[in-house]
Amino acid sequence: MENIAQIDQKIQALMWQMRKETLVKMQQPFSIDEKSGRKDLVTTIDKSNEQTIISKIRELDPTAQILGEEGFGDQVNQINGRVWLIDPLDGTMNFVMQQNNFAIMISLYEDGIGVVGYIMDVMNQKLYHGGTNGVFINDQQIEAPANLHLKDALIGISGPLLIDNNHNLQQIARQSRGPRMYGSAGIEFAKVLTGELVGYVSYLRPWDFAAGKILAQALNLQVKTIDGGPLSMLSSNVVLVATERASKEIVTLAN
Amino acid sequence: MENIAQIDQKIQALMWQMRKETLVKMQQPFSIDEKSGRKDLVTTIDKSNEQTIISKIRELDPTAQILGEEGFGDQVNQINGRVWLIDPLDGTMNFVMQQNNFAIMISLYEDGIGVVGYIMDVMNQKLYHGGTNGVFINDQQIEAPANLHLKDALIGISGPLLIDNNHNLQQIARQSRGPRMYGSAGIEFAKVLTGELVGYVSYLRPWDFAAGKILAQALNLQVKTIDGGPLSMLSSNVVLVATERASKEIVTLAN
Repeated sequence: MENIAQIDQKIQALMWQMRKETLVKMQQPFSIDEKSGRKDLVTTIDKSNEQTIISKIRELDPTAQILGEEGFGDQVNQINGRVWLIDPLDGTMNFVMQQNNFAIMISLYEDGIGVVGYIMDVMNQKLYHGGTNGVFINDQQIEAPANLHLKDALIGISGPLLIDNNHNLQQIARQSRGPRMYGSAGIEFAKVLTGELVGYVSYLRPWDFAAGKILAQALNLQVKTIDGGPLSMLSSNVVLVATERASKEIVTLAN
Repeated sequence: MENIAQIDQKIQALMWQMRKETLVKMQQPFSIDEKSGRKDLVTTIDKSNEQTIISKIRELDPTAQILGEEGFGDQVNQINGRVWLIDPLDGTMNFVMQQNNFAIMISLYEDGIGVVGYIMDVMNQKLYHGGTNGVFINDQQIEAPANLHLKDALIGISGPLLIDNNHNLQQIARQSRGPRMYGSAGIEFAKVLTGELVGYVSYLRPWDFAAGKILAQALNLQVKTIDGGPLSMLSSNVVLVATERASKEIVTLAN
């Protein structure tokens, strides 16, 4: 395998290539299927994106494991060694209904530790990427967002969790300056990175949060379960990403 | 007064000028005050935008009444004659916290009937405008969105109404393909116009919905109170804008 700086350049190029391909495929007919139900969609573009990404990563890093949302990767049962996580189209419902507010995400973990993460906001032409060496939007390095309190900012919360008031999230929303709901983990993680949201809470699978977790932690943001515990990288979690202050406040209110 | 086509050209130019001025003012220091509380902000930019808009409209249409959010217009007690409604910065909370997802809105009513409406999505550089002669995004005329059912699409709902389950909105959200929450009436009306949302429900004041109502009705969308009644143009309403099908379904579920 090449060194991480070389790999990073190639994955960045891959993200821009995937963006371009997705924009082209969106203009052509594609099929939409339901996965677990009418609110959980998959398109032929999710699948073909994943196949392209996996084939490129196999070439770059042939001995790593690959965990992809659509199942074209490996059966990953342990997080040791190098593991690539892939969400080929995050926010598929938005992609289908809005042709906006969706992302492509890739990340690399080594022995469970995040190395590099990539979130491509396709329609806004913004690639959020980096790791411990800094976080960038395209070529511009960004600073850690202000360590705001919950009461002083907006919070992203997923619809089902807010409606069902799981983890006292209605009260948490009331204590903030307002809830927001965009329907894509990648887009909402990106808004926490830039400080547009003080935090985000949603029930997520590993490929939904893996890239965002690396970028968030590199900016001094906390990424935990809603109980304040560590995330499992191989199963679903109610994920909380937030500033250090808001994270403490939310975990207290939620438990 | 000039004819409506001439006025329309001048208001379009004014909207682009206001966009440019707002982008400049955002880069300079501005003050933020609370109005009714910590979730209801006003900035010096809201105020200066309103003053600029009113002074231009006075010049174009000196005998009309002007109803502006920040109070620099007239005390409007009846909707007869020509009335201009102005929201100089819609989504002020987003403006302050996100520097995104806010709008500038102007509309003209004559004897209570909508003539022309304008919604400027400042950061996306999109002016939604028109009336019975058609609805345009910048120079491109748009078609009426598909007459979708609630169950087949996303719906915008304001945070407080969803959290408090007013009008059975939690059930309405569950029946849709998912709720979304963007925090700006102008931005959410725009998403209903383009079909990105099947509808939008929020407690709104006249300047929040006046422009959107004109554009929505010109595209065969229904704009009513959540009870299915007509909107008051001089007071607050729980406003529902939706496709004809979703509107019927939502009114039934809400009542």
